[in-house]
Amino acid sequence: MPVLNETHNPDLRSWVSCANLPDTDFPIQNLPFAEFRRKGSDESFRGGVAIGDQVLDLAAAQHLFTGAAAEGAAACAEPTLNHFMSLGRSVWSALRMALSRGLREGAEEQGALENCLIPQSEVEYSLPCTIGDYTDFYTSVFHATRVGSLFRPDNPLLPNYKWIPIGYHGRSSSIDVSGQTFKRPQGQIKAPDAAEPSLGPCKRLDYELEVGIYIGQGNALGEPVVLDDSDQHVFGYCLFNDWSARDIQAWEYQPLGPFLAKNFASTVSPWIVTNEALLPYRTAFKRDAADPQPLPYLSSRMNSEEGALDIRLEVLLQTQQMRHHNQEPAKLSESNFVYSYWTVAQMVAHHTVNGCNLRPGDFFGSGTQSGPEHEQGGSLLELSRGGKESVTLPNGEQRTFLEDGDTVVMRGYCEKEGAARIGFGEVASTVLPASN
Amino acid sequence: MPVLNETHNPDLRSWVSCANLPDTDFPIQNLPFAEFRRKGSDESFRGGVAIGDQVLDLAAAQHLFTGAAAEGAAACAEPTLNHFMSLGRSVWSALRMALSRGLREGAEEQGALENCLIPQSEVEYSLPCTIGDYTDFYTSVFHATRVGSLFRPDNPLLPNYKWIPIGYHGRSSSIDVSGQTFKRPQGQIKAPDAAEPSLGPCKRLDYELEVGIYIGQGNALGEPVVLDDSDQHVFGYCLFNDWSARDIQAWEYQPLGPFLAKNFASTVSPWIVTNEALLPYRTAFKRDAADPQPLPYLSSRMNSEEGALDIRLEVLLQTQQMRHHNQEPAKLSESNFVYSYWTVAQMVAHHTVNGCNLRPGDFFGSGTQSGPEHEQGGSLLELSRGGKESVTLPNGEQRTFLEDGDTVVMRGYCEKEGAARIGFGEVASTVLPASN
Repeated sequence: MPVLNETHNPDLRSWVSCANLPDTDFPIQNLPFAEFRRKGSDESFRGGVAIGDQVLDLAAAQHLFTGAAAEGAAACAEPTLNHFMSLGRSVWSALRMALSRGLREGAEEQGALENCLIPQSEVEYSLPCTIGDYTDFYTSVFHATRVGSLFRPDNPLLPNYKWIPIGYHGRSSSIDVSGQTFKRPQGQIKAPDAAEPSLGPCKRLDYELEVGIYIGQGNALGEPVVLDDSDQHVFGYCLFNDWSARDIQAWEYQPLGPFLAKNFASTVSPWIVTNEALLPYRTAFKRDAADPQPLPYLSSRMNSEEGALDIRLEVLLQTQQMRHHNQEPAKLSESNFVYSYWTVAQMVAHHTVNGCNLRPGDFFGSGTQSGPEHEQGGSLLELSRGGKESVTLPNGEQRTFLEDGDTVVMRGYCEKEGAARIGFGEVASTVLPASN
Repeated sequence: MPVLNETHNPDLRSWVSCANLPDTDFPIQNLPFAEFRRKGSDESFRGGVAIGDQVLDLAAAQHLFTGAAAEGAAACAEPTLNHFMSLGRSVWSALRMALSRGLREGAEEQGALENCLIPQSEVEYSLPCTIGDYTDFYTSVFHATRVGSLFRPDNPLLPNYKWIPIGYHGRSSSIDVSGQTFKRPQGQIKAPDAAEPSLGPCKRLDYELEVGIYIGQGNALGEPVVLDDSDQHVFGYCLFNDWSARDIQAWEYQPLGPFLAKNFASTVSPWIVTNEALLPYRTAFKRDAADPQPLPYLSSRMNSEEGALDIRLEVLLQTQQMRHHNQEPAKLSESNFVYSYWTVAQMVAHHTVNGCNLRPGDFFGSGTQSGPEHEQGGSLLELSRGGKESVTLPNGEQRTFLEDGDTVVMRGYCEKEGAARIGFGEVASTVLPASN
């Protein structure tokens, strides 16, 4: 099982007292990274670490560290985290250890670090790094089967699915951070009974509940990453909403895959929860006995024993009407990353087996993380059975697909006996009406 | 028809005398941009302009210009052209005009500019810009039909082809400049009669003859580029080899498109021939009467009258054995960008119709530019009819797909009565053996 250290000790308490509340996303065992500045200011964005409801400003705090931790903190002071992400696991770990020690109850650095705290309520975020390339995987066999049955009733799960961690390249230019708003996309749509397509606003706008994965250290072109080395290359995780225009997708996606159905907007949560923070939530990676054994480059004892991640995921919807009446977002579904048919290590090993190079800051989407039950669908396409059944919200409103003014919220957290709760915060973004 | 100016005058002659030779790729009417430095040096890369067999060093020459041309030249002094590309058409044109005047016979700047020339034989190139996102289109209906008939014999050309400029996102990390070498990729391959896939070196390695398109000024998220405005956004063109692993592609590509079959390497020629330099080669965009009329957002009088580009393209192969015997590369096929079913303006308008944002330095591949005749196939997949017929080279060697040590060379140029020849130079790159 993964090697834990003192930073994972569930009994640790911080002198930032709200970080000790049982339901906080950001206890001292988490320490996720983001790029932030004071809301509405023209300050430079710089790296920060979440602790309770505060952000520790790493540009302000960098001089308080020594050695590799100081090198890491100095890199975090830059307006993107790419340099920090490129420094590798020993530097990431050194900074995590120094932060854990400095933020603990009784730390002698308390006085100095207190001056570097800013309430999260007073900051705004940017993308945490420049995303060079974005790859979207398709790792939920439940999602793939349900969606496949809608697009290809005769042939829902293709023969390659259980051999290849299917993925495709997405667009990085339109990825933005939580708070993103975007106009409902226009596109070519062809109704099944129409003779010709026409241009119009998407009528089947959807979200996809995904886990986002940030690459830290890259690999050289021509040098594949071996399965059991993937932790050297995975920096951390976030929540990811891969907005999708189902009607545009149905008409455009053959033979080369989704394009304009996806690239109008994609939204990440601001905080990167590090791979190291999630080690207590590594778990065995299970396959049905009937499933084929993966090829050797996708198979290892370590991957089987601790390749999966137990991250609870949920999607909520707040309509314009709910916002108007100050009603909280309503839950649409819950799922878990543990249902993924492929592990992150398998995604990394497969992506690079042909020699493809990954760079610091590159981003993977996990694919929609639907669970085995219908209620665990990670998209409205699934929950509405392809638009055939409406979902009824607590206030009586109904949805098959998204309407203008809808805000989709995704949350995630890890929780179990004997480990600290590790939260992801949330990603929330809102659909605006299409242009005229 | 496009508005030409004095820089396009075919009678112009340069004081760089080799730029006046009839077969040069780089006469004074061309003036393409690249990033270069002295070969083997540790100098910074900086922008340069090709004239004859020389490079004009724009970092060295920038102080010789004034106004918008000086602004452009200063931006070109940076180690990528992204800033210059972002400045827009008026700056690009101002610098082109100043370069044209300064390099003409009799120019008073001759003495100062002579000191800024370096022979092309003494320099090396980098990618001309940071490519944020790379999109590969599929615009040759001849290629799409021939390849479709191999992958889907029952259904070679899908119903969306004549309505949508089909494209998909590719990988930017593995794009490099002419001279790139790469190992034959490994990947999952499944023979049609095999029960299971296996991992092994690609056996059906291929090139694709494409035109590359660089975006200059971008567009904001949610703000589509109107068809007739595309010249505001297209900076220029190059040659592009989109290496492809056909056996990996056949097994992986459904349902989300090509992935590892493409992202192991892609190679561009070093020089960006500007959109402005190519104006004399704009030509009418023809469709068969039987083809559907494009939807209004893809249709305009300007696009019909001058949307196509008459660029002659050729692919050559030099095997290891040919290199050993000092034999020149042998021509495999010739084609022309004029055969493209969609214009570059249509690619830009379609890509952004959903609000997708393009950024300076973003890159489009045109898709393999095969002509109507079998002999005009832009890939070995086509020339060998899916690997069924070998191609015989002048020295007696045979190829169905590429072998280790093969160097693929692509060249392109524009030529017609009443206009100066505009050449693209070449892109050449070599296949290395797979890793053990």
